[in-house]
Amino acid sequence: MTMLTLHDFHRSSASFRVRIALNLKNVAYTSVVQDLDARAHRATAYLALNPQGLLPALQIGDHVLTQSSAIVEYLDDQYPEPPLLPAGALERARVRALFQTIASDTHPVTAMRVAQYLKQATGCADDLVLRWKQHWIVESLAALETMLAGSPETGRFCHGDRPSLADIALVPQIVSARNVGVDITPYPTVSRIHDACMQLAAFRDAHPDTCSSNPAYHKE
Amino acid sequence: MTMLTLHDFHRSSASFRVRIALNLKNVAYTSVVQDLDARAHRATAYLALNPQGLLPALQIGDHVLTQSSAIVEYLDDQYPEPPLLPAGALERARVRALFQTIASDTHPVTAMRVAQYLKQATGCADDLVLRWKQHWIVESLAALETMLAGSPETGRFCHGDRPSLADIALVPQIVSARNVGVDITPYPTVSRIHDACMQLAAFRDAHPDTCSSNPAYHKE
Repeated sequence: MTMLTLHDFHRSSASFRVRIALNLKNVAYTSVVQDLDARAHRATAYLALNPQGLLPALQIGDHVLTQSSAIVEYLDDQYPEPPLLPAGALERARVRALFQTIASDTHPVTAMRVAQYLKQATGCADDLVLRWKQHWIVESLAALETMLAGSPETGRFCHGDRPSLADIALVPQIVSARNVGVDITPYPTVSRIHDACMQLAAFRDAHPDTCSSNPAYHKE
Repeated sequence: MTMLTLHDFHRSSASFRVRIALNLKNVAYTSVVQDLDARAHRATAYLALNPQGLLPALQIGDHVLTQSSAIVEYLDDQYPEPPLLPAGALERARVRALFQTIASDTHPVTAMRVAQYLKQATGCADDLVLRWKQHWIVESLAALETMLAGSPETGRFCHGDRPSLADIALVPQIVSARNVGVDITPYPTVSRIHDACMQLAAFRDAHPDTCSSNPAYHKE
């Protein structure tokens, strides 16, 4: 079996998604911490692996996979159990759309590099950067709540009664929302699904506060 | 055969991707123009279809699919020829990552709603909004050029010698780049692949200037 190496940082929301998927699939991997605060992701060594200079990257032998959705789809291809996508094509489209509502339309707009450039380019105060993040997260959670609460396909999790790609994106987004002071109680379905996910060790062990790639956290 | 209805606007970059995919698959569909300038995408009728209020949406009977990547993956599932993803799992991951480099990390940060909110929240001049768009597009094109030029898997198109998901994202991004005055000559591989795509009718017929959903363009 080829060894998997995840270039990771505990606070990276996209890396958090991949950590959850690896845990759900029970796949062993090694973590390499790329310290975003020390700008390790912009160093020559890392840029040679991922020219985008973003986390995560998953090394598999000579191959380097980037982009959390591509990585999670790969893991679902290679390690079919438990499946992270439903069997039907329309249902897969629903789950992928929920994933991208977060991974394309929310997280990239509020990511660290965007917040830093916003401040640098406009000279705005930190308070405005915070409101920027809150604005996009609130907009997204409102849409997600409507999408989830309005569908008979929503179950204990975003799609039915087992975790899928959609839940893998949802939980890191909720953690980010709370980090910037967004109240999630107006989104009861989102909130309920988050709580259901956090009852699973695969989600808890991937959390930024307690994952093995958090330098401040040492597991027993 | 269930009729497909695409909620579309000629200038929507994400809709452009879906138009290309439908053309490559030679799938017949009906267009419903949602005029972004008239804010049709924020009207109650459209929000009932897509609570995100974003384009595109693809209606298939009672189902509404959203998010361009989910829609294109669905089309590739249902209409296998010609395939838009390679056969191998690692190769699929490469193509999906190229797609998301644009669809997650570039386009959403420069989209109309983000540009409008940037201006509203910071009170900045139009010139700064333009530089904002240019900044993210240049950063993305530089990474894409490195990813494409550095890989033996790049061929006439982003992956080998037939168009894939990656090309479907690349061409609309180049159109957007040119619209905001980004010179693409520093990215010769990107530029060459764009030109190869534009030799295909599937790409040309989906272009904002000439697609059937452009109210100003009437086909013979």
